[in-house]
Amino acid sequence: MFGFLPREQVFFDLFEKSAQNVHRGALKLMEIVGRFRDLSVLAREMKDIEHEGDRITHEVIERLNRSFITPLDREDIHVLAGCLDDVLDFMDTAVNRMMLYKFAEPTEDAVALARCLERATTILQDAVPRLRKLHNKHEVEALLKCCVDVNTQENEGDRIQQHALATLFENGQDAIFVIKWKDVYQDLETATDRCEDVANAIESIVLKNA
Amino acid sequence: MFGFLPREQVFFDLFEKSAQNVHRGALKLMEIVGRFRDLSVLAREMKDIEHEGDRITHEVIERLNRSFITPLDREDIHVLAGCLDDVLDFMDTAVNRMMLYKFAEPTEDAVALARCLERATTILQDAVPRLRKLHNKHEVEALLKCCVDVNTQENEGDRIQQHALATLFENGQDAIFVIKWKDVYQDLETATDRCEDVANAIESIVLKNA
Amino acid sequence: MFGFLPREQVFFDLFEKSAQNVHRGALKLMEIVGRFRDLSVLAREMKDIEHEGDRITHEVIERLNRSFITPLDREDIHVLAGCLDDVLDFMDTAVNRMMLYKFAEPTEDAVALARCLERATTILQDAVPRLRKLHNKHEVEALLKCCVDVNTQENEGDRIQQHALATLFENGQDAIFVIKWKDVYQDLETATDRCEDVANAIESIVLKNA
Repeated sequence: MFGFLPREQVFFDLFEKSAQNVHRGALKLMEIVGRFRDLSVLAREMKDIEHEGDRITHEVIERLNRSFITPLDREDIHVLAGCLDDVLDFMDTAVNRMMLYKFAEPTEDAVALARCLERATTILQDAVPRLRKLHNKHEVEALLKCCVDVNTQENEGDRIQQHALATLFENGQDAIFVIKWKDVYQDLETATDRCEDVANAIESIVLKNA
Repeated sequence: MFGFLPREQVFFDLFEKSAQNVHRGALKLMEIVGRFRDLSVLAREMKDIEHEGDRITHEVIERLNRSFITPLDREDIHVLAGCLDDVLDFMDTAVNRMMLYKFAEPTEDAVALARCLERATTILQDAVPRLRKLHNKHEVEALLKCCVDVNTQENEGDRIQQHALATLFENGQDAIFVIKWKDVYQDLETATDRCEDVANAIESIVLKNA
Repeated sequence: MFGFLPREQVFFDLFEKSAQNVHRGALKLMEIVGRFRDLSVLAREMKDIEHEGDRITHEVIERLNRSFITPLDREDIHVLAGCLDDVLDFMDTAVNRMMLYKFAEPTEDAVALARCLERATTILQDAVPRLRKLHNKHEVEALLKCCVDVNTQENEGDRIQQHALATLFENGQDAIFVIKWKDVYQDLETATDRCEDVANAIESIVLKNA
């Protein structure tokens, strides 16, 4: 059966590509908060990653619309592809804003949120290939464990954002500075929310198919 | 037939529990704006209510994924459970923010929004049990009346938020004070929006099933 | 066959009415930013247009819930009707806010966003009637071209919003002024996002039915 590739496998291939690409985006974000003087160059590299994400998502949707039979529930495929893409979009939006708002340097809380996204997307990148093996109990358990771990990261993202807001307000910062960083924290925290949405979609797929 | 409980009844039981729990959250919010010096203790009680809401919602989703036959449209069950939970989440977020932002006292508009949420959730708590009796014309009329009443409360929430914003800006408040209260008003107004989404889901269920 | 009107045609009639009404809203918005001293009168006219939009959308949803057979995928009908209405809602919200925030005059970027919405809704108004003729290759190509053009306008809306934010922050404006205009720019940019969602729904319908 070597070389055999049922048409439905394409969805799993695309999900894997997408999860890897999202993780690549999180690594780029880490690079950005670590080498902030190169922001404008690195932001362009982030934008390329984001465009690749759009391309993959578009291919999923197009194939979904043209397929009569799908290996997973249509709605789950839709949510999984859309939310993976959203993670990348919000990271890219945060980076755009960092340029637009002409920050001199990233805050510690922004670095902490980037690190949280790196962890969450590592887990998702590890989880997605297991969707091919829902008949295997061991893989199903590993998948459900991944979902719990992503939720942990989302809670951590929440906690960091709260700390970030408290810090902004306690330090008696200038209102314009507060307005700008609040936006960026919100973008990054929303990216962790979308990681959780991906995990929820995976959990729903597991419960229906395992 | 005593003790007979068809498996599908479980969804209605869970919706009722959820609506009661959401209303409990609104009462806690009223308590908070009324006894603001006890904020930190009462916020922990709100968090417990919110966790109970998560538990109920999770149970609905899990049962939905495992059920081949459901008493209502799957999508409607999903929206109903999700939006009820959202109402609670946004009230809890508002309370968290009140602590994080270290307010000295609630504004009059915040109290008015809490009162609006108390009314809207009272109506929802009254409406949800009627979903079991869609074959009864009287119950159907009562349900549609509830939906109209919730929409009235959502319009009222909108109106209060607009008044709140006008007040913030007219009183020449400090920008930081404006930023903080705008966030809380937005959380509370979004909670009333989600009450309306619950009412819309109920209306959709009635139209399909009555 | 004169006078023959299959029941399903009603959905296309309603979509056309809705797209025309949305475009009427965009023209009203242009009138508002052009005759800002008449804001309060024109805002009332905008509100009437928004109410008409609500009425149309409600009729679509009601018919959808009562119909066993629909000319398009139920979910697509739902998204198309909902997103068309959202475009109007966000334009109306922006106008309300202009009154609430007591602006003396519109900014150049607000005018540019209004013009962008006028273009996007012109395209949608042209596209929607073609949904009746998905068996015609020429119409299908025209529809897909419309979708690309709406996406171009959404990108333009994004670009204008970024320029608007940069301008707000570079001019060393007062924080309260920044807070107010950021809200309005967000409303208007979200309206262009919803135009794109309408275009995506149309594209999805074309791919499934052509």
